[in-house]
Amino acid sequence: MAHSLADDYPWISQPLIVNAPMGGFAGGALATAVTRAGGLGQIGAVYNMDELSDQLRIVEHELERCNHVLPIGVGLLPFVSKLEKALPVLEKFKPAVVWLFAANNFDDYKTWSARVREVTPRSKVWIQVGSVSAAVAVAESCRPDVLAIQGIDAGGHGFEKGASIISLLPEVADTLAKHGFGDIPLVASGGIVDGRGAAAALALGAQGVVMGTRFLAAEETIIHPGYRTAVLATTDGGQSTVRAKIFDELRGPNIWPVLYDGRGLVTESYNDHAAGVDIAQIRSLHADALKSEHAGFGESRRATVWAGTGVGLVNRVQPAEDIVTEVRNGAFAALDRVRSRL
Amino acid sequence: MAHSLADDYPWISQPLIVNAPMGGFAGGALATAVTRAGGLGQIGAVYNMDELSDQLRIVEHELERCNHVLPIGVGLLPFVSKLEKALPVLEKFKPAVVWLFAANNFDDYKTWSARVREVTPRSKVWIQVGSVSAAVAVAESCRPDVLAIQGIDAGGHGFEKGASIISLLPEVADTLAKHGFGDIPLVASGGIVDGRGAAAALALGAQGVVMGTRFLAAEETIIHPGYRTAVLATTDGGQSTVRAKIFDELRGPNIWPVLYDGRGLVTESYNDHAAGVDIAQIRSLHADALKSEHAGFGESRRATVWAGTGVGLVNRVQPAEDIVTEVRNGAFAALDRVRSRL
Repeated sequence: MAHSLADDYPWISQPLIVNAPMGGFAGGALATAVTRAGGLGQIGAVYNMDELSDQLRIVEHELERCNHVLPIGVGLLPFVSKLEKALPVLEKFKPAVVWLFAANNFDDYKTWSARVREVTPRSKVWIQVGSVSAAVAVAESCRPDVLAIQGIDAGGHGFEKGASIISLLPEVADTLAKHGFGDIPLVASGGIVDGRGAAAALALGAQGVVMGTRFLAAEETIIHPGYRTAVLATTDGGQSTVRAKIFDELRGPNIWPVLYDGRGLVTESYNDHAAGVDIAQIRSLHADALKSEHAGFGESRRATVWAGTGVGLVNRVQPAEDIVTEVRNGAFAALDRVRSRL
Repeated sequence: MAHSLADDYPWISQPLIVNAPMGGFAGGALATAVTRAGGLGQIGAVYNMDELSDQLRIVEHELERCNHVLPIGVGLLPFVSKLEKALPVLEKFKPAVVWLFAANNFDDYKTWSARVREVTPRSKVWIQVGSVSAAVAVAESCRPDVLAIQGIDAGGHGFEKGASIISLLPEVADTLAKHGFGDIPLVASGGIVDGRGAAAALALGAQGVVMGTRFLAAEETIIHPGYRTAVLATTDGGQSTVRAKIFDELRGPNIWPVLYDGRGLVTESYNDHAAGVDIAQIRSLHADALKSEHAGFGESRRATVWAGTGVGLVNRVQPAEDIVTEVRNGAFAALDRVRSRL
């Protein structure tokens, strides 16, 4: 039986709603709003630890500490974030959660979790993976406080190959239990954008749900207006998005570990690549588009718009608090509808 | 509000469990057992209508008609099954459901549904699609009695591009409702193999669930022992399966419409293709493997093993009745667990 999240994060309302720590999009304002609404708000960091400190100060100004930690999460990318630069920031602000995702090899998670726990023992370490074998490997090496299980529907970066949470989450749960890790709580992401998806994730065995794409439409998210317009206008998410490594090639060579790619809207850059256009030409067209009036988000879109398959269900801008409340209530409503039909 | 399936199929127990009409695998014995257990059993047909008649006679011998129809479904593939040859069989046996999947163009479904309804008006027409736009197009042209929404996790054939049911099903439901087709019931498939997946599908808005991969482990399924052994032994379904068109190229040119590919276990044939080996050589190695002692299912597997991402959760052979009962009870249990946790 998995440990209950309610014990460790006393401010949360059930079911737990978490915003994905989207680097460059999820800052202090979003994290504050999500936590205020009873969720777990998160800030996404990449390289710049001064910027992370700035965003954390926004939260510190707005939210009280809870059990000595700041009631939000900070997402870091071990393959590119610098551990030694991140540690002083984590030690200073002591976020409730340190979310790790994307390492060059799984052993790096071990180093990171150990060092994080050293400098801020009350912070919980959450690690995101996208396969059964990765979940077991990380459980064995790091004993994370939570495993975030990301399905193939997710927008932005994730495992290039994989399953959706429909089969991934139950198989992870069963396999962890078989290996003696049945006490590690799981949260789910990938394609969840509303109460129905959240209820489904809970039925699959998750204790909470993580949403990225839906929060692209939160008022507090840091986002280019053209990017948001593209997200709101898109329908038929399985057809209009695609997983591809080309999105990571547009500004220069791909720096992501080979295991990963990203899901985004189909763009002209993607289409050109699929049609065999030379990468140098694609990069040049992309660079020009970014300098244009629409910053590459215009009609013939060349800039990358990370989005999951749930993008077709995201169609209006709302305060993050309303998103959290709506998804939470929607989950209860979806479960009630099932019960009344059975 | 969608029409309730219980009205049209009075023998079913809630929630409805359906076996996918897997051509060559799902015969009369499986269909009989699934229906007897309170599900909707189905037979998969491709070319051979004499074989279909033989399988239907098995059912007719075992099950009583209900409201004048045989309480099972028959799956046909409009792009390759011959309508004129199928109609007399459908007229004679009058199955409760005629399940249509894979047409060269969506208009063919219109012809097929009209002719089927002409020769057996009490039979219900179910059509399986894998995108929002296809669901709307088919709803408009055919008004199917049920739309079967297939997510990208599904084993065997399906839309090459797409989303899992996590986002696909809710977006289909919302879009159909917006177009005035909110009364068409939806069933879901793709990655559902147990009660957790079934409960998730119901929460997403499905009225029933369709399983293929799980029924590969039913005693009544027609299957090579090596094929079944491979299914039972496989873990980490998102990593060990792959969607690819190469599976349809092994016996000669691919005859499937361009929209489709299939998901199966990663095989040597797939690996060779990915490594750039010439198709003639892959076909020759495949043909040799099929003639070998293990029929291509041996250690270096060359024969295609269609399976969905849920394959890692399928690990024992059971009577179909036990599968139906277990998944049904498992769905209630999963919903109860969520309720008790919230």
